[in-house]
This record gives sequence, C-alpha cells and structure tokens, in this order.
Amino acid sequence: QGTRDHPPAHTALRDRLLAAVVACFKRHGAVAIDTPVLELRETLMGKYGEEVKLIYELQDQGGELLALRYDLTVPFARYLAMNKITNMKRYHIAKVYRRDNPATTRGRYREFYQCDFDIAGQFDPMIPDAECLKILHEILSDLQLGDFLIKVNDRRILNGIFAVCGIPESKFITTCCTVDKLDKVPWEEVRSEMVGEKGLSPEAADHIGEYVQLHGGLELIERLLQDPKLSQNKLAKEGLGDMKLLFEYLTLFGITGEISFDLSLARGLDYYTGVIFEAVLLQQENDHVEEPVSVGSVAGGGRYDGLVGMFDPKGRKVPCVGVSIGIERIFSILEQRMKASGEKVRTTETEVLVATPHKHLLAARLKLISELWGAGIKAEMLYKKDPKLLKQLQYCEDTGIPLAAIVGEQELTDGVVKLRDVATRVEVRMPFLYLLPKVLPKCRGC
Amino acid sequence: QGTRDHPPAHTALRDRLLAAVVACFKRHGAVAIDTPVLELRETLMGKYGEEVKLIYELQDQGGELLALRYDLTVPFARYLAMNKITNMKRYHIAKVYRRDNPATTRGRYREFYQCDFDIAGQFDPMIPDAECLKILHEILSDLQLGDFLIKVNDRRILNGIFAVCGIPESKFITTCCTVDKLDKVPWEEVRSEMVGEKGLSPEAADHIGEYVQLHGGLELIERLLQDPKLSQNKLAKEGLGDMKLLFEYLTLFGITGEISFDLSLARGLDYYTGVIFEAVLLQQENDHVEEPVSVGSVAGGGRYDGLVGMFDPKGRKVPCVGVSIGIERIFSILEQRMKASGEKVRTTETEVLVATPHKHLLAARLKLISELWGAGIKAEMLYKKDPKLLKQLQYCEDTGIPLAAIVGEQELTDGVVKLRDVATRVEVRMPFLYLLPKVLPKCRGC
Repeated sequence: QGTRDHPPAHTALRDRLLAAVVACFKRHGAVAIDTPVLELRETLMGKYGEEVKLIYELQDQGGELLALRYDLTVPFARYLAMNKITNMKRYHIAKVYRRDNPATTRGRYREFYQCDFDIAGQFDPMIPDAECLKILHEILSDLQLGDFLIKVNDRRILNGIFAVCGIPESKFITTCCTVDKLDKVPWEEVRSEMVGEKGLSPEAADHIGEYVQLHGGLELIERLLQDPKLSQNKLAKEGLGDMKLLFEYLTLFGITGEISFDLSLARGLDYYTGVIFEAVLLQQENDHVEEPVSVGSVAGGGRYDGLVGMFDPKGRKVPCVGVSIGIERIFSILEQRMKASGEKVRTTETEVLVATPHKHLLAARLKLISELWGAGIKAEMLYKKDPKLLKQLQYCEDTGIPLAAIVGEQELTDGVVKLRDVATRVEVRMPFLYLLPKVLPKCRGC
Repeated sequence: QGTRDHPPAHTALRDRLLAAVVACFKRHGAVAIDTPVLELRETLMGKYGEEVKLIYELQDQGGELLALRYDLTVPFARYLAMNKITNMKRYHIAKVYRRDNPATTRGRYREFYQCDFDIAGQFDPMIPDAECLKILHEILSDLQLGDFLIKVNDRRILNGIFAVCGIPESKFITTCCTVDKLDKVPWEEVRSEMVGEKGLSPEAADHIGEYVQLHGGLELIERLLQDPKLSQNKLAKEGLGDMKLLFEYLTLFGITGEISFDLSLARGLDYYTGVIFEAVLLQQENDHVEEPVSVGSVAGGGRYDGLVGMFDPKGRKVPCVGVSIGIERIFSILEQRMKASGEKVRTTETEVLVATPHKHLLAARLKLISELWGAGIKAEMLYKKDPKLLKQLQYCEDTGIPLAAIVGEQELTDGVVKLRDVATRVEVRMPFLYLLPKVLPKCRGC
C-alpha cells in the first residue's frame, strides 16, 4: 500500500521527465553521485524532527541497524562529511521512503523519486542560491507545466520578525510551522493557532500577521530594510540584505517575473538556515480539466549551513544550498492532463517492424533485422514463424511503429525491400543497401 | 558494509555503461517498467531455494510484512500475474539487495544494479531465446570488453542426461548444482562430490562426466541427437531439437563465433525450465594488468516457463525467457583497466566556463551564462564575485572544460567575447551574437 508498480506508459513518461531534469542539472555542470538506499539508523535519527516516525527500519538480522533513506539531503551531508569534501556541485536522482499516509491522488506515495541539485562550499553570498532558483525556473519552463510562481523567503528574516514581535527564541521553530500553513488556511485560523495552541499574545500574533502577509519584489525588500523595527534586528537585516542581492542576480537572469518574495513561506524542515523557496503551479484560466488535482508545491529547497557539521567529528561546517524537484507531483499533473486530452504516450521507440507477407520467410526476417540492429536502428519483428501480414501491420498501429520493412519472395529475388509508411500506407521498393541510410534519417526526424 | 557510496567518477562511468545497455534494450523494442524496491515478504519466499537467508527483511512496524527485492525476475513474474499480462517485452534496470558476504574486489556487493531484459508470451520456439542471446552479444560487443564467450545449454538436456545415467528425479536439482561447479574446479573434484556428498554411484558419475565435459556447436548437437541413449529420452530430444533451431537462428544473426553449446553449464537457480546461458570474458593475451581481477560471469539468463504461474491464483503459466547483465562486474573490469591505463573519466559535461579577467564584472558573467544556458549550452562559472583569471582557467584544466568565454571591460565595450581554447590557449574575439552558434558545434564535436 502506498507503493506501486509503474507500467510502461508511466515509466516512459516519467523517464522523459527525469531526462529533462538531468539535462538541466548537467547544463549547470553538476556531477552525479549515488548513495545506498540503506543508511545506518543513527545517521537518520535526529535530523527530521517529528517525522522520525515515518522512517522505514530494517529488521535486526545481525550486523548494523539499518533504515531506508528518507530524503537525499541527509545522505549528501553524510557523504560530504565522511569524505571531507568541502566543495561540490552534485545532483542525485533516486527513490526515498516514507511510512506516510499516502495521498495517492495528489501524487504522494511511500516510495517516490527525488531529484536533488545542491551546491556545497564557502562562496560569495547568494551566487549559488541564485543558480538554484535559475535551475528551478529552467526546469519548470522546460517541462511546459504552464504558469508557476516561486516563493522565496529567508529563515533569518522570519526569525528577525519573531524577535521584534517579542517571541522568545524557544518558540521560533513552532511559530515557523504555524506560519507555514498560511498557503492553505486564512490568516484568522493561523492567528488563532498562534494564540490558542502556541500561547502567543494576541498583540504579538497581530504584529507577526502584519509582516507575514506581505509579498512582493525588490521594492518590498527596500521598504523592509527601512522598517524602523526590522532594521534594528541583526538577523533580519542580514537576511534582507542578502535577499536584495539575490533579487539583483535574479534580475540579471531575467526570471524575477515568476519569483515572489513571500514572507509567509516558512518550510517545515528544521535544518534550513537562510534562503528558502518553494514553487507552485498556477491554475490556468483556460484549464477545463474535469477534476482539477490539487498537488501543492512541486519543488522546494533552501540553504542549510549546519547539516554537514552534524556528521563531522569536529563539527566542521560546509555551507550548502539546494533544490529538490517533486517529480512525482509533476508526473501526476501531466498524467491527468494527458488523460483529459486523450493523448497517448508511446512506450517504445521502435522505428521499423521487419515483416513478411508469406510463409517460410523467417530466415529473411532474422537476417534483415540483424542488419538493422547492427546499424543502430530500433527494430522489432513478431516472434512467430509465419505471422499474417495484417497482424504485423496491426502491431505497428497498436504500438506506434511508423515504418514496416517488408520482404517477400519477389523482394528477396530482386534484392530489394518494400518500405511502408504505416500511417499513409505509401510503399516504396528500394535496394536493400539503400535501406539503412534511408530509414535512419526518416525515423529520426532529421 | 557491502554497500557503498558512488563518487562522481564511479557514477559517470556507470551511467555511461547503463546508457549503452538501455540503448540496446530500446533498439530491440522493449518497454520499461518499474516495481517497488519493497515486496511483500511472501512474494519472495519459496522462489530462491536456499538463498532465502540472503533476503533483507523490514521491521514489523505495523502494516504488511515487507522485504527488499532480491532480483528483478520474481517481481516481473509477480507483475505479469497480478496484471494478467500474457505478452510483454520489457527491460528493468534497478538495484537489488542481498545479505551476502560481499566480495567487493570481484565487484560483488550487497546493493547492486541488475539490468534485465525479458520476453514473456507464448511464441514459436527459440525466436525470443535467440533474441536474448543477440542482445547479450550486442551489449558485450558495444561495451568493448574484449573477447567473450557465451555458453549455452538447456535444462531439459541436463535432466535427460541425468535420466539416462540412472539418476532418480529427486536428485536432478542437487546434481545440477554440482555440475555447475565445473567452470571453477576440475572434473575429478566434481565427480568426488557427486559420489561422496550426493551419493551417486561411481558409474553414474562417470557416465555423467562423459556428457557434461562436452562443448561445441551445431556438429555436437547433431552428434548428440544421434546418441543411442539420449535420442531415446524425450526431454533430451526436445532440448536438443530446440538447441539445433537456436543455433540456426544464431547463425542467421551471425554470432555463433562467440557462442558455445556447453554441457557443463547448469546455472544455480531452480526456476529455469529450458535454455540457459552465461557469458564470460576471456583473458586477453596482451593484457598486462598488474592484478587481473577474476570476475566470473558477466551476464546470464534463461527460460523460466513456470514462475509466473506461481503467482497466478489459477496457476496460469506465461512462458518467459530473459537475460540479466551484471553491470557491476563489468564496471569493476572497466574501472581496473582505466586505472591501469591512467585514463580519467570526466565527471561533468560542461562545455564552457564563463570567466572574467578583472574585478566588478559579476553582472556580465551572470548575464552571459544565462544566455548560454538558455541556448542549451552546458556552462559554469565560479561562485566568486571577483575570481582571478588564473583560478578560472585552472578550474577548466582540473575539470576538463574545453572552452573559456572571457568578458573584460574592453570586450563589454566592444560587444564581443574572447573565446579561449583551454588546451591550445588559442583565443578568438567574436561578437557576442556569434558566440552561441559558434560555441555549440565546436563543443558538441559536430
């Protein structure tokens, strides 16, 4: 339950998505690493806050106590610390495991892919952070998901706000969690949780509310930098200064149109220390999908400067910033859209079916297909000694194979092949020698 | 222990191997499926014989009892039965888990990739079987691993031999296991295990020995078809008849030069019912590697017509044949060779580094790199506001980036970019507008 088999149509679409993501990561010069799906149990403990109960543990069958990885960020931090690496730009695409209540209609499963890109190292402020946002922008654009918005905030700004509103530091994290709900529920509910459950004073809550409901761009950053209270707070000032720098870089990248400085963004995980961000898809006005799927955010990330130090015996820190693409949620949306439009995914890439019109021609088919494979052409044949021509052409139509290479007695005698365009039914006889260079460009769309 | 992190150089080489394997599987028109790494414990039980003790089990944390998959064949059979699929050509590349004693120098780990291609369905004899061998031959050729040999046998022939040698059917499987050791130990040892441990009569053992030490091609098959005893045995006759057909197809594919009908090949797993095969690399005479790694077989497979029926409530059978490529062992060999030759793997594909020769030019770099990314060019820059030119060029040399696009004050004023070939140090000034189309073909080697 909560895990699933992926049939060919799923896998083909997902592989296409993953290929686009990998292409972007490589375009930005990232190396790939791979870590085991099994981690020592102690590596994962104390990194995810309350979510520890969602970790899958392995039975003690002798040897180390093991658990399935929960995300790719903690294994990355462990990898850096173990190998004393202080500088790395890497991507990692792999499955992670959570004993969650799966909400499968929203694309949430217990086993799912994460696509992570992270930059580790001590660099000049906000340059790597800006690249992570650029990557996120490129991927969401490349996948043609429609309009999207990337919300950006900074943990230091949030903590600064809490401080100037008189919240004790011990309540920063829990207040953060409450603020994070603002994308789902109205301010009144968030306020009453702050006052009721979290024990904040109504005045403090109202004061927080004045800030966290703000969103905008460079002009909002400038305004807050002039804010009489915030400008007195060291953390907030640092965060706002860096946010200004970030927006300058994003302007040079030409992507501020889809980016909003949003003070309600808080993100759940404990380990963020600076910039945080999250991408949401915007409902299209002309989207007439029958049951619009609510998928929440499709990507997120941020800066976590303290995590690597937790794995280093001497606590040496390696600053990191990264972005994680929620490929499963994006998959759900695309799948739903294709269902609505009736579009089908081809599950193979076969370019030509080798077919025969009469009996006793298996040897001719085997020889011809062998030549095609040798030339790098994607070719299939039916596994029957004497298949009917109609069945062979039907197979092409069912599986989307564009061409059939037909060899009958006459063709064998003449040393030619009959090449049939399955859609138009146009047939051309051509010498066998010409087939390879002719088929290839046609199929590959050159 | 027995699992490992894969650093960038590993991952880059492995991804290259996997890409070649996937290309071959796609060339043969296979669809891809994906199944969860977690299977119900009961699915895996009773499928692997004694190897059941090597299965990783998950802790009972409530819910179903789960285990990590042991191979990709059993999940495939379960998938076919569950979805009532009677006809499918699929590949699956994923990690499997075994609580084995890892022999890491031989490329054996507890977590490792399997690359499986299988054809399920009722077809005319030996056509899919021949394609599996063709695929194996193509992959081993494409990967340029040097000379290799694919040994082929048939479980029915082995069982026929055991029968005519007077072995009771209850001892077929255990005798099979003993025969399988012939590739590692001499016949005398195998014989004494048969007589001593397995309780066969010395005469029966000698009789078996006369058969299982034979290997050859079509002429051996013909000879055995005339063998006075074997020709009387129904199973052996069927197996030999199909083997003859297989060799006819392999001759049409032109690959019999690397294929040997080898009666000592038995394969460990219980579930094989017909053709079995295994590929070994042959030591090169001119291979002067310091410590030649013994890696055993690099691929194997066979026909298993009964496995799907074990998962079907009504026991409906779906005949299957498949091949599994031992990518980790192949990886070990290639890694060792590259070490010996001093060859290095590039871990990124970056085509150009965007660099500046003076201070205060970060904005120019950000703008230029953004344009390059937009044009699909793989580009990097250092995450420093004012990096030294020497450091930037050094980074190109360290990471194998072939080109540097340099923008200084003068270039900015003139609207040009200085393109530097890192290896030859030749520099060309060109208008920025020309850069994109010029860089692209050069980097891509067109």
